[in-house]
Parts: sequence; C-alpha cells; structure tokens
Amino acid sequence: MPRLRVHNFSISLDGYVAGPDQGPDHPLGVGGERLHEWVFATRFGRRMIGRDGGSTGIDDEHLAAGEANIGATIMGRNMFGPVRGEWPDDSWTGWWGPNPPYHHPVFVLTHHPRPALEMDGGTTFRFVDDTSENVLEQAFSAAGGKDVRLGGGAATVRRFLRAGLVDDLHLALVPTLLGTGERLYDDLGDLPGYTVSPARPGDNVTHIHLTKVGD
Amino acid sequence: MPRLRVHNFSISLDGYVAGPDQGPDHPLGVGGERLHEWVFATRFGRRMIGRDGGSTGIDDEHLAAGEANIGATIMGRNMFGPVRGEWPDDSWTGWWGPNPPYHHPVFVLTHHPRPALEMDGGTTFRFVDDTSENVLEQAFSAAGGKDVRLGGGAATVRRFLRAGLVDDLHLALVPTLLGTGERLYDDLGDLPGYTVSPARPGDNVTHIHLTKVGD
Repeated sequence: MPRLRVHNFSISLDGYVAGPDQGPDHPLGVGGERLHEWVFATRFGRRMIGRDGGSTGIDDEHLAAGEANIGATIMGRNMFGPVRGEWPDDSWTGWWGPNPPYHHPVFVLTHHPRPALEMDGGTTFRFVDDTSENVLEQAFSAAGGKDVRLGGGAATVRRFLRAGLVDDLHLALVPTLLGTGERLYDDLGDLPGYTVSPARPGDNVTHIHLTKVGD
Repeated sequence: MPRLRVHNFSISLDGYVAGPDQGPDHPLGVGGERLHEWVFATRFGRRMIGRDGGSTGIDDEHLAAGEANIGATIMGRNMFGPVRGEWPDDSWTGWWGPNPPYHHPVFVLTHHPRPALEMDGGTTFRFVDDTSENVLEQAFSAAGGKDVRLGGGAATVRRFLRAGLVDDLHLALVPTLLGTGERLYDDLGDLPGYTVSPARPGDNVTHIHLTKVGD
C-alpha cells in the first residue's frame, strides 16, 4: 500500500519546527533558519542550491531517502509562497523558479483555489481546498502507486497527524533550543500510536523515525 | 566554581517529563513510568532496587556520572513524597526507607516547613521555603565545595532554569510519545543560552547535554 511520508522534518530540542513571526521576511520564522543549516552542510542540500561539495554521510543519505519512491507531494500554502489571503494574480509560481525540484504533482492546500500551474520538468502545482482525507486520496491517485510526501509547514503536518493519515514521520532533531516558535507537538489530540526508532546520530542532527502502529 | 547540575532527566520525544494526573497512585503521572524504564535496564538502576544484573554501557555510565562530585541535592516536594498541603505529622520520611541513597544534605522545597530529618547513612532532609537563589546558596554551602544536584520534578527544574541557575542539564531522550503530561519546555521565559552537545545514543535512550553559555 502506498504511504504518506514526512521526511527530514527539522525540529529543535525543545520541539519547535519554525521560529516565531513567520512571514515574507522570515518564511521559517525568526531564527528558524538554524533548523535547516544541517541540510546545506550536505552534498544533497548544496546541490539543491547549485553548489558543490558537502558531506556524504548519514545526513546526506536521509535527505536523499526522502525523495525515493515519491509520486506526489502535499504542502501547505506557506511552503508554496508568502502570499496570504486571496491571490492578487497568478504571478507567484513558488519559491523554486521555472523548474521546481519535484517533477511530479504537488497539491497546495489553500482556501483560495486558482488554476493549476504546469511547470518545467514535470512539476504541476494543484491548489486544493478539501478535507485531508480527500486531498490525500487525490494525491495517491496522482502518485500512480508510489508514496506521497507530506511537506511542511508545521500546521500542515499537524493537520494530517491529527487525522491519523501520516504513516511515516522522519524527524531531524537539531541540537539547539529555539525557546519560542511553532511547535510540532501541539493540539494533536488522540494520536494513533507510533513506534519510535532508536535515535540515529548523523553529522549535525539526530535522525528519529516514527512509524504508525499497524502499518 | 561548584555547579548546579541536573542529570538523567528523562524526557519523551514530545517533550514530556511526566505523565498527566500526578498523585499518590501515579507519582510519575499516568504512563510516566515508561520514561524511567531505561534506568532499570542498567546495572546502576537495578542496584538501586536491590537487584543484580543490568547493562553496563553508556546508559549505566551516565547514571553513575550523575552521582559524581555531588555534595548536596535540591528536590521538589513531590519527589520527596505524595503528601500535599500541611504535613499531617512527621511520619513520612521519603520514598527511600531508613537509608536513602543520597548520603548528603537534601533540600526539599515546600511551603510547609517541618523539622529536619536525620536519616541513616548521612542523608539529612531539610525543608525549605525560600527563593531559588537562597536555597541554592544554602545547598552550595552544605555541599562543602562539591556540586549541587537538582532533582525533579519538572516544576522544580523549570523554576531553577527560569532563574538562570542551572549550569548543566543532562537529558535522557526516551524514544516514545506521551502525547500529554507535564512539559519541560514550558513557561521558561528568556532562558540563558545553552550549548547543546551532539546527541549520544545509549542502549535505550539518547543522551543530550546542555551547558550554560559562559560557564
């Protein structure tokens, strides 16, 4: 059965996945960049931004594993862009330029639908305003038998966790305290049980895998 | 300079250090026992309860290290016992029997003072109702140049963290989700900065050391 997977979800020691005051100037919240530094120390992360070099160890392997066997992605609107409310026009096409690194259908959750965007390289952004279950059903259908990747942000991950739909949740525990910001473990209600793997130390973060019990 | 140290403080992946509804029947909160199972898998932990065997690896080493060079202990009242409010009499002398495993002065925080208790083996329980700073000064004085250990519970650790008094905080990250209970990272205000060590995997938990910046 195809699975809904979250990968390389960076979280501070004190449970924050973004800093406070997220907005156009601080898409990751104030101070939230610290949570993602480990990505850009890896070969995988440096290639994402067109750079050479980077480590090829456990952190790099985990980043690459997050891409394997993924046929569609679901993401929150804030991960797609900084625009809030009604779309003023169709000019915003994501953070990633004309050829986004997805190369498959991407479902953007928004209460303000707009026409699908066909990008270069096989990425299509589809804007959906529906229940988590229905969005996931569409994504599984579009993924053609492969798994679906659930991107951020925190609210999106919490929404699918609350609905009991996340099969695999891979956290990258960053050895830092943010002190404030947006928590992953907030308002999750009665979560289904997860098996938690032993923590695996990487180069700069610690990798922890949660697998839904019964999957 | 002597230091105020927290050791082997068990915390769930989602940041809880005790389960909900702490009380006489559930001194660690409902489900909180899960956070301490790792202790009783070690030689150190099994000796505490008069048993043989147990692992002698990294978890065991960390438990032993928590005892080294400690001259006094501070703990919250709930760690001393289940009695709430006024002491009905002096019959409760702690969870540990006539010879508690401290063998040094132990300062029990309570708004309801009572006479000091001299136990076998050198442990003295002193009941104090004072500011964190003053209690710590008394403890350092009683420790005779050694460090002071700060025991639980969560409220006590948070209180000394908020006051900026904790020099070393060693967490044992337990690979489980409690979902509810008492959080360590709550209401901490403007914490002083801490350097966070790379996580070190043990046999059953992951060890993380926070050291106050500037110490």
